[in-house]
Amino acid sequence: MINSNIKKPVVLVLAGHDPGGGAGIQADIESIANCGCHAVTVITSLTTQNTNCVTDIIPQKPETFKQQIQIILDDIEINACKIGIFGNAELIEIAHDQLSSFTVPIVLDPVITSGSGTVISDELVLEKITSLLVPIATIVTPNSDEARKLSNSDNLEFAAEYLIQLGSENVLITGTHEETDNVINKFYAKDKTPREYRWQRLPNTYHGSGCTLSARIAAQLALGNNTQKAIEEAQEYTWNTLKHGLQLGQGQAQPDRFFKKRN
Amino acid sequence: MINSNIKKPVVLVLAGHDPGGGAGIQADIESIANCGCHAVTVITSLTTQNTNCVTDIIPQKPETFKQQIQIILDDIEINACKIGIFGNAELIEIAHDQLSSFTVPIVLDPVITSGSGTVISDELVLEKITSLLVPIATIVTPNSDEARKLSNSDNLEFAAEYLIQLGSENVLITGTHEETDNVINKFYAKDKTPREYRWQRLPNTYHGSGCTLSARIAAQLALGNNTQKAIEEAQEYTWNTLKHGLQLGQGQAQPDRFFKKRN
Repeated sequence: MINSNIKKPVVLVLAGHDPGGGAGIQADIESIANCGCHAVTVITSLTTQNTNCVTDIIPQKPETFKQQIQIILDDIEINACKIGIFGNAELIEIAHDQLSSFTVPIVLDPVITSGSGTVISDELVLEKITSLLVPIATIVTPNSDEARKLSNSDNLEFAAEYLIQLGSENVLITGTHEETDNVINKFYAKDKTPREYRWQRLPNTYHGSGCTLSARIAAQLALGNNTQKAIEEAQEYTWNTLKHGLQLGQGQAQPDRFFKKRN
Repeated sequence: MINSNIKKPVVLVLAGHDPGGGAGIQADIESIANCGCHAVTVITSLTTQNTNCVTDIIPQKPETFKQQIQIILDDIEINACKIGIFGNAELIEIAHDQLSSFTVPIVLDPVITSGSGTVISDELVLEKITSLLVPIATIVTPNSDEARKLSNSDNLEFAAEYLIQLGSENVLITGTHEETDNVINKFYAKDKTPREYRWQRLPNTYHGSGCTLSARIAAQLALGNNTQKAIEEAQEYTWNTLKHGLQLGQGQAQPDRFFKKRN
């Protein structure tokens, strides 16, 4: 007998692992836990990296990846899903097969380069993201560079429209990589006027802000909030994790997802 | 320039990955984050499991494991270390080589079986745990079954003494697997009278309580607390995570490491 008062909303995360914990499943686990939900995670790729650089990306074996998703879905009820980096196209095909019949919200963070600039997704991976994952997404959360690459266009309005036409219900394009004074994020929903959100630009560069944001949106959706409320809370939370960012190594800073717990 | 007010104590975790998030690095990340510290994690083994069973354990490639530890230690200052399961003896040898010159506290959770009873460590792994890891540990945290296996003795007093003679400064033997009315944990420190801690026995069986406890002890030590304070806070925290445990799947319950955040 499962007692409903001993459950929490659950977010399934498909993402990479970053030993330093700035990005990847640790960012997701923390962002989701801080939101009152529980993460279950299947690792797409292991990586060798620190706050300076990525030196290796090791994709999971496809068969193991598939079994791990399956054994979780067989046992645990999922309330939302967040998809991050993939190591190769085959893993995307498996994720698509497993998730395409999902009725829960899916948040797709289409990671193409790491925070430190390493290219993570090649052309074939990009093609699979647009053809297989964007169509099943509730929301796609590219930064402006990723939006341009996914749409093969310099026009961000066009890029958003393109991703919506491919099938994603919503698109949030983040502006951290632009040279505007404030960071301007823009939210596009099908058949609605876009909304702009302006955030004070912070002095550092960060590793893991995109993971933190997209996982938080998924957690907000798992709680039952609508997409607009989800993206608003997630942006505010993420900005605060960056404002209180940690400088643990010699390279990029990382979000402090528990900044209220600092001693 | 690193500003000390944007740092947190860091705990290096060497442990497995559990997709369901009850145990493994997720337990560690959450237990450590909840304590005001930051985890950096190197995965020893991936596993395929849910709340019912473990169907596969996939050790990391030794060379990758070594590089991942090295790239983190080259970049990030560590305040404590927590060691969990290993997939094989070779990974233990690498961990020993990397950690034996450490001056920070090392918490060793010598996992032999999973919460659901699957044997995780074979005879060779057991031998390497006792010969290479126990001697460099600040504290070893076996449950009573693990203490018996590690010492090859049914006498828990002898087992604790044996682990201390091997080189661990302290031993905390947990009593969840015993049939006593209360759970009795016993703390042994070199040349000191043992201390007993009694906890109300909870009705469920749990997956991840040992990980939660040992990671929390490591976080407490990273904060600069002494071992006795660390084990006392960690036991209380862990008992509370179990009391508020989550029933997410059909099998074992799991600790809620953010029970205060429940909606």
